[in-house]
Amino acid sequence: MKILLIGVSGTIGKAVTKRLANNDEIIAAGYSNADVIVDLGSAESIKKMFEQVGQVDAVISTAGVANFGSFDQLSDDEYQLALNNKLMGQVNLVRLGRAYISNGGSITLTSGVLSREPMIGSTAVSMVNGALESFVKAAALEIDSFRLNVVSPIFVKETMAMMGMDTEGGLSADDTAKAYVAAVTGSMHGATLDAPDHVN
Amino acid sequence: MKILLIGVSGTIGKAVTKRLANNDEIIAAGYSNADVIVDLGSAESIKKMFEQVGQVDAVISTAGVANFGSFDQLSDDEYQLALNNKLMGQVNLVRLGRAYISNGGSITLTSGVLSREPMIGSTAVSMVNGALESFVKAAALEIDSFRLNVVSPIFVKETMAMMGMDTEGGLSADDTAKAYVAAVTGSMHGATLDAPDHVN
Repeated sequence: MKILLIGVSGTIGKAVTKRLANNDEIIAAGYSNADVIVDLGSAESIKKMFEQVGQVDAVISTAGVANFGSFDQLSDDEYQLALNNKLMGQVNLVRLGRAYISNGGSITLTSGVLSREPMIGSTAVSMVNGALESFVKAAALEIDSFRLNVVSPIFVKETMAMMGMDTEGGLSADDTAKAYVAAVTGSMHGATLDAPDHVN
Repeated sequence: MKILLIGVSGTIGKAVTKRLANNDEIIAAGYSNADVIVDLGSAESIKKMFEQVGQVDAVISTAGVANFGSFDQLSDDEYQLALNNKLMGQVNLVRLGRAYISNGGSITLTSGVLSREPMIGSTAVSMVNGALESFVKAAALEIDSFRLNVVSPIFVKETMAMMGMDTEGGLSADDTAKAYVAAVTGSMHGATLDAPDHVN
C-alpha cells in the first residue's frame, strides 16, 4: 500500500512508520522534518499536499495541535488553535483528501482518551477529541468508497518519560502504533479505536 | 431561584420556561423575541448580557445554531457557524458567565443525541455535540463553585411535526424540559443528561 502519514516526526508517527515501512510505501508528511511539508492549520496547505502526493491507498494522521491549560486561563486563541488545527485540520484531511483515496482505502485520524477521561487542564484538548470522535462516526455514514476511523490513544510512555511523568499508566509508542495498523488493515468504518484494545 | 434562560423562544426553551416559571424567576434571553437580546456567536454580546443581567443562580442554554447538510456539501462557513455558535457560544457562556453564578448554582448547556447516534446529514451537528459533552466533562473538573452539565435531547416531537416527520421516535418538549429541571435542581456535575432518562 501507498500510505500518506501526516505527523511523521512525532513519537506515535515514528512508531507507526516503523510498523508499516517493511510492507508499505510510506510518504512522510509533517509540519517539519518530513518529505512533504504540511500545515494542518491551513486548508490551502492540505490541498497542496494532496496535489503534490496524488492518489494513495491510505492516509494516517498522527498530527494536530491542541494545548493544555487551566480552564481559568485558556485564551480565545488557545481554543481557536485546538479547533483550527487538531480538529478542523483533521476534518479537512477527510474533506480535501477523499478525492485522492483509492477505492477501498482508508483515512485514520487521531483523537485521544481525554475525550472521555479528562484531566485537570485538558478542557480544550478534551473538547476537540470529543468532536473528532463524533465527526468520524457521523461522516462515515455518508462515505462509501473508503473507510474512516479515529484512533484514541492513552498517554504514550515515551512522551510521559520526556515530560518527567510516571509512565505506569501509559502505553508504549509501539503498542499504540498497533491501533493504527488495525485501522488501516481492518474492516472497521466510523469507529473510535481505543489504542490499548489493539495491543495483542 | 433567578434563572437566566438563553433560547427562550425555541420549542425547548418555551417548555423549560413553563416548567420553571411557577417557582423561579426566569430572565428570558435569546437572539430575538426575548427580554434580553444576545447573539451566542459573539463573545462581546454574551459579555454585555451578563453585565446587564448581573448575578443569577442558574444559567440554562437551549440555544446554539448548527446546520444539517450532506458531508459532500457542508461548506467551510457551515463548519465555522457550528463551531462558533453552538459550540463556542455555549463554551463562552461558561467562560464569561462563571463570575455571575451564585455559589452552589449551575450552568446547563444543550448538545444532542446526534453526538453518539448520528444520522445522514448530521456531520457538523454531531461534531459540535460531541465537543460540548467532552468540554463539560473536562471543565467541570476545574469548577468548584457551581455545577456544569449538558442536556443531550433526542428529537423533539413538536419540531418533528413542524418538519413533517413521523414523531414516533421523538420526545415531547415538555418531557425534554424535565432533563433541564433535573440538571438545575439535582446534584450532578460534569454530566451529560440524556433527556429521555429524566421523563419519570
